[in-house]
Amino acid sequence: MRYPNALIQLIRELSRLPGVGPKSAQRLAFHLFASPKEDVEMLAQALLEAKNQLKLCPVCFNITDKELCAVCEDNKRDQTTICVVEEPGDVIAIERSGEFDGLYHVLHGVLSPMNGVGPDQLKIKPLIERTKQLLNNGALEIILATSTTVEGDATSLHLQRNLEPLGVNVTRIAYGLPVGGSLEYADEITLGRAIAGRQKVR
Amino acid sequence: MRYPNALIQLIRELSRLPGVGPKSAQRLAFHLFASPKEDVEMLAQALLEAKNQLKLCPVCFNITDKELCAVCEDNKRDQTTICVVEEPGDVIAIERSGEFDGLYHVLHGVLSPMNGVGPDQLKIKPLIERTKQLLNNGALEIILATSTTVEGDATSLHLQRNLEPLGVNVTRIAYGLPVGGSLEYADEITLGRAIAGRQKVR
Repeated sequence: MRYPNALIQLIRELSRLPGVGPKSAQRLAFHLFASPKEDVEMLAQALLEAKNQLKLCPVCFNITDKELCAVCEDNKRDQTTICVVEEPGDVIAIERSGEFDGLYHVLHGVLSPMNGVGPDQLKIKPLIERTKQLLNNGALEIILATSTTVEGDATSLHLQRNLEPLGVNVTRIAYGLPVGGSLEYADEITLGRAIAGRQKVR
Repeated sequence: MRYPNALIQLIRELSRLPGVGPKSAQRLAFHLFASPKEDVEMLAQALLEAKNQLKLCPVCFNITDKELCAVCEDNKRDQTTICVVEEPGDVIAIERSGEFDGLYHVLHGVLSPMNGVGPDQLKIKPLIERTKQLLNNGALEIILATSTTVEGDATSLHLQRNLEPLGVNVTRIAYGLPVGGSLEYADEITLGRAIAGRQKVR
């Protein structure tokens, strides 16, 4: 005996999602089968609407459903700082911290030669163009907020080398112990970076 | 700044799925945003088709897209054995073992008074009716293949008490060490059950 085709098809589509293996796809499919029809229809509709209405902001490449994204549209934000992040989700993470009031630039990935991702696959050229334009208005700081992984660091280094010659002030987010982190459980590299990045007590 | 509405809506719908928290819902939503439009449409269509085409087999309550499920439809299968399982997924798991050629009965859950699941919430009455009918054709064995959890055992016990008086041969799947399992890592209850359930070497 085998599953009905509609079930096989649903399991196949679900298992293409990241982090969803064949077993969880099967579990999800059975859950959806047992859910009220309206719930499944709402999910299907949310999928289609998201795909139809959302696009990338032409300035910073954040996700938006308008001409410009909410950050680029807001004139009250600090126009002299750009925070460069890997993914649109990182924008929300930084917004939640409440520590940043400038603009963003979303790269949509990190440099990863092994996976065929070079500078041309990321939104690096538009960042350089944008930097040149904003420099006409005066001083500009670019905060590199890529991940503190090997690939994130390499991307950061590549950006630094291409941006600094333009005369822009390039900074990198701080390495260190996470808040609430115990020294005992910190790895030696993080600990070394935390000591190297020490700051005067205010 | 906040997410566009279509994105918020998609994340909300995705996070209602079992095992998908707010963070993974966000990751899934960004993945879907970056996926080709056809892929998202195929997923939405698979959802709707599964919901429209699939229903429960009126005999054994397995999932089907026909009048009867593939097992109930197949006259060549052993009509004198019913394997009782909790969920439709369990049918496929047992089919894959290749050790069973009889019929199934899907309960759609386990007895769980704490969660308000009593005998009336499961497909127990139809099982008793079905048992009575099949007994008219001669001997019948019912294999209780619910989980070896407290709730699965309680469900099994409840079924045994209601089925045995009908004159049916009720059995329970064996407890024991999983194949490839090491004695050293087995918990004492499993080990005790494995010893109690020992069988003559053939």
